[in-house]
Amino acid sequence: MPVTLGQLAELIGGVVHGDASCIISGIATLQNARSGDITFLSNPRYSRYLSDTSASAVILMEEQRAVCPVHALVVSDPYLAYARVAAHLAPRLPAQQGCHPSAVVSDAASVDGTAWIGPQCVIEDGATVGPRVVVGPHCVIGRDCKIAADSRLVASVTLVHGTVIGQRALIHPGVVIGSDGFGLANDDGRWVKVPQLGAVRIGDDVEIGANTTIDRGALDDTVIGNGVKLDNQIQVAHNVQIGEHTAVAGCTGIAGSARIGARCTIGGGVGVVGHTEIADDVHITGMSFVAHSIREPGVYSSGTPLEPNREWRRNYARFHHLDGMARRLRAVENLLKQQPSK
Amino acid sequence: MPVTLGQLAELIGGVVHGDASCIISGIATLQNARSGDITFLSNPRYSRYLSDTSASAVILMEEQRAVCPVHALVVSDPYLAYARVAAHLAPRLPAQQGCHPSAVVSDAASVDGTAWIGPQCVIEDGATVGPRVVVGPHCVIGRDCKIAADSRLVASVTLVHGTVIGQRALIHPGVVIGSDGFGLANDDGRWVKVPQLGAVRIGDDVEIGANTTIDRGALDDTVIGNGVKLDNQIQVAHNVQIGEHTAVAGCTGIAGSARIGARCTIGGGVGVVGHTEIADDVHITGMSFVAHSIREPGVYSSGTPLEPNREWRRNYARFHHLDGMARRLRAVENLLKQQPSK
Amino acid sequence: MPVTLGQLAELIGGVVHGDASCIISGIATLQNARSGDITFLSNPRYSRYLSDTSASAVILMEEQRAVCPVHALVVSDPYLAYARVAAHLAPRLPAQQGCHPSAVVSDAASVDGTAWIGPQCVIEDGATVGPRVVVGPHCVIGRDCKIAADSRLVASVTLVHGTVIGQRALIHPGVVIGSDGFGLANDDGRWVKVPQLGAVRIGDDVEIGANTTIDRGALDDTVIGNGVKLDNQIQVAHNVQIGEHTAVAGCTGIAGSARIGARCTIGGGVGVVGHTEIADDVHITGMSFVAHSIREPGVYSSGTPLEPNREWRRNYARFHHLDGMARRLRAVENLLKQQPSK
Repeated sequence: MPVTLGQLAELIGGVVHGDASCIISGIATLQNARSGDITFLSNPRYSRYLSDTSASAVILMEEQRAVCPVHALVVSDPYLAYARVAAHLAPRLPAQQGCHPSAVVSDAASVDGTAWIGPQCVIEDGATVGPRVVVGPHCVIGRDCKIAADSRLVASVTLVHGTVIGQRALIHPGVVIGSDGFGLANDDGRWVKVPQLGAVRIGDDVEIGANTTIDRGALDDTVIGNGVKLDNQIQVAHNVQIGEHTAVAGCTGIAGSARIGARCTIGGGVGVVGHTEIADDVHITGMSFVAHSIREPGVYSSGTPLEPNREWRRNYARFHHLDGMARRLRAVENLLKQQPSK
Repeated sequence: MPVTLGQLAELIGGVVHGDASCIISGIATLQNARSGDITFLSNPRYSRYLSDTSASAVILMEEQRAVCPVHALVVSDPYLAYARVAAHLAPRLPAQQGCHPSAVVSDAASVDGTAWIGPQCVIEDGATVGPRVVVGPHCVIGRDCKIAADSRLVASVTLVHGTVIGQRALIHPGVVIGSDGFGLANDDGRWVKVPQLGAVRIGDDVEIGANTTIDRGALDDTVIGNGVKLDNQIQVAHNVQIGEHTAVAGCTGIAGSARIGARCTIGGGVGVVGHTEIADDVHITGMSFVAHSIREPGVYSSGTPLEPNREWRRNYARFHHLDGMARRLRAVENLLKQQPSK
Repeated sequence: MPVTLGQLAELIGGVVHGDASCIISGIATLQNARSGDITFLSNPRYSRYLSDTSASAVILMEEQRAVCPVHALVVSDPYLAYARVAAHLAPRLPAQQGCHPSAVVSDAASVDGTAWIGPQCVIEDGATVGPRVVVGPHCVIGRDCKIAADSRLVASVTLVHGTVIGQRALIHPGVVIGSDGFGLANDDGRWVKVPQLGAVRIGDDVEIGANTTIDRGALDDTVIGNGVKLDNQIQVAHNVQIGEHTAVAGCTGIAGSARIGARCTIGGGVGVVGHTEIADDVHITGMSFVAHSIREPGVYSSGTPLEPNREWRRNYARFHHLDGMARRLRAVENLLKQQPSK
C-alpha cells in the first residue's frame, strides 16, 4: 500500500528533508533498496552503504543527514522508526473467519464467530477462542485452554490443557505450552513422577518463537508477563515467572521456579539455575550461566574467550591449577614481604 | 476425590499428628493452600511460609512438627510423599478407546482394542499400539513402530519408522524419536550421507519432555534404559546409550555413541562429547561440558562464574594469558629459590 | 538387495583381498555383524573388535589388512566407503505419487504429478512442489513456498510462507523454516515488533535435523548454501548466511546476520554472536562461544575443563580474581627486577 514520504513522517513523528510527496511502496536494506523503497540507517557498521543506496528515501539521525544522497526522514531512533514503517508497509494477511472443514472442533469448545480455525486443527472440550483470533494449520488447543482476542498461532502450535493466552499474542510454529514440568522425587534409586497440576498463564502482547517450550506449574502456575518476547528454542521450566517486557534470546534455558524481573534482556544460550531470582532491569550477555540470584540491575556475563585451538588447550589445562596458582602467588608475595626492603 | 488425612498417611507410610479424620480434597503450595488442601514442606527455603499456611494439613519431617500450625503428616521424605499424594489427588483423564474418525490408521497396523488413537493421528503400516495406550491428537506413528502397554503420547509426537517404546512411557508434545543421526563422510570437501539403518529402543517407565529429539542409530540402535527421565529440548544423538534410572535436565545435548551409566543425573544445558563413557552414579552440574569419559562416580562440573560485565571483561581477557602466567609464576619461584635464604 | 563383494569394490573403487564372489546382503558394526554382512573399520578405537568379527568382509585400510580374519575390501577412506556401501544396501522407500485424501491441498498450489503429499498435510495457496518430492505426514507447506525436485520432508515439517527449498533436500521431523526472526525495537521500555519481511532460501543437497529452526530474514533473506548439513535442535536466526558444504552439529545457535563461510564445521552446543563473520574452512569445537569474527581458517575453541566438583569450586572462585592475580604477578616480577642481580 503506497504512501508518501510525508505521510510516513507523520506516522513516526519524523522530519522530511527532501520531497515529502515522494511515493514509497516498499522497504529494503541500504544495499538492496530500489527506487520506490525506503530504507534506514541505524547500526553504524552499515554507514558505508549509505552513499551508494538506490532507495528513494532513508530513515536516519540528524547527524547522518549531510551525507545522505537521497530524501531523508530524520528521527531520533531510526530502528524504532523502521519497525513502525515496516509494519505500515507490510502486506496484510487476508482475514478469514470460521473453521476449516478439516479441523476437529469439539462441540464443548467456544470459538468466537470472528475467529479462524485453520486446516487440521484440533480444538478440545472446554477451550475458548476469542474474537479475531487466528489459529493456523495443525494447531492443537487442549482441554480448557483460553486464547484471548486478536492472538495468532501461526501453525503447528500445541497448547496442553488449561493454558491461558492473553490478547495479541503471536506464537510461532512448533511451540509447546503447558507440557509437564520435570518434577521427580527419588525413591531409593527410582524416580517417582510429581504430577504437574498447575497451568501456564501468558499475558498480553507476548511473542513466542519457534519450538520454544513452556512447562505447566507443579502446583502454582508458570507465569509469563505482559509484553514478554521469547525467541526460538527456549525452555521455560515449571513455575518460572518472567516479568513484563523482558526479552529472551534463542536457546536459553530457564530452570524451575526461577523468577526473572521486568525489562530484563537475556542473551542467547544462557542457562538460569532453578529457584534463582533476577531483579528488574538486569541484562545478561549470551552463553552466560546464571548460577545464583542477581539482586542489582546491571549487565552480567560469564564465559571464557574463543582462541585458536592450540593456545586454548594450554590455557584450558592451566584452569585446573588456578587455585594452586593463587596459593603459590600468595606464597611468593609473603616471601618477598619478609625480605628486608632495600 | 476427597480422602481423609489418615487414609493419605496409610498411602505414604506417614504418621498423623492431629485429626486423622480431616477431609483432604486438594493439594497446593504452602503459600496458596486453602482449607481442605494438604501441602508439604521439603525445601528449607520455604520454611518461612509454614507458620502462615491456610492448608488443613502439612506433610513434613519430624523436626518441623513443633512449628506446624495445623495437622501434620510426618514422613522421612516429604517431597516423595508429596509426589504420591499429588498422584492420588490428581484428576484422572477420562478413558477413551478406539480411533477418532479423523485419524488415518493403516489397515496394516495393529491397534489394541483398548487403546485410543486421537484426532488427526497417522498410524502407518506395520505399527503396533498396545493395550490401554493413549495416542493424543496429531501424533505420527511411523512404519513398524511398537508402543507397549499403558504408554501415553500426549500430542504432536512423531515416531519415525521402527521406533520401539516400552510400557508406561509418557511422551510430551513435539518429541521426535527415530530421526536420522548426523552421519556424514567427507569426500573431498563435500558431505556424503551415511544412511542411518539402526533404530531407537526405549525401555519401560520412560518420560520424555517436550521437543526432545532422539536419533536412530547408524547401524546398531540408540538405547534408552528403563526408568530414564528426559526433560525438554534434549538432543540424544545416534547410538547413544543411557542407563536405567538416569535423569537428564533440559537443553542438554548428548553426542553420538556416548554411553551414560545408570542412576546418573545430568543438569540442564550440559554437552556430552561423542564416544565418551560416563560411569554409573555420576552427577553433572548444569551447563558443564563433558569432553572426556568419566570413570568414577561423583559430582562433576565445569564453567566460570557470572560477574558484573565490567569485571568479567577484565578476567575474561586474562584467560588468554593463563598459560603464560603459570610459566611466569614458575620463573619467579625458581628465581626466589636461587636466592640465599636469610 | 544382495550383491557380491566384487561389485561393492567396483562401486567404491576398492581392492578385494579374498573372495570377490562372496555374497553380501547386509551391513553392520564389527561387533554385531553376522555371516553375509559387510562391516568397516575406521575409528581406531574399535580395532580390538576386528579379530573377533563374524562379518563376511571388512572395509579397511591397507595397513589393517594383515590382521583382518575375513575377506578384506581395501580403500583409502573406510568411513566414506562405508557410507556408499550402506546407501547401496539400504532398503528403498516404496515410491508413492499423488495426494493422500486426508491432505488439504489448495487449488492454487502446484503439485507435480510425480510428487507425494502424505496424510494430514496442508499445502497452501501458491505453493509449488516439484518432481518426485516426498512430503511425509503432517507437514505444512505455507503460502508461496517452493520445494524443488527430489526433496523429502520426512514428517511434521512446517514451512512458513515464501520458503524456498532446493533439490534433494532431506528435512527431518519438527523442523520449522521461515518463522519470524527475533526483531524488536525498544520504545521507552516496551518492545515494538520489527516485521520480518524477508524469506528463507535453502540451496541444493541440504539436510536439516529434527526440531531445527531457521528464521526468515527481516528484509533480505536468510540463506543456506548448497550442501550444508544441519543437525538437530539448531537455531539459525534471521539473515544468517551459511556457506556451501558447512556442517553444524546439534544444539548450536547462530544469532542474527552472522555470516559463516564455506566448508566450516561447527561443533555441538556452539553459540555464534550476531553480525559476526566466520571465514571459510574454520572449525569450531563443541560448546565454544564465538563472540567475534574469525578471519583466518583454523581450529578454534573456548571453555574450561570438567573437574570433580570440589576442585572445580576452588578454581571457579579464583576466576573472579584472575585479573588481580595478573596484576600481582606483574608487581612481583617488577620487585624482583629491582633487586640487585647476584
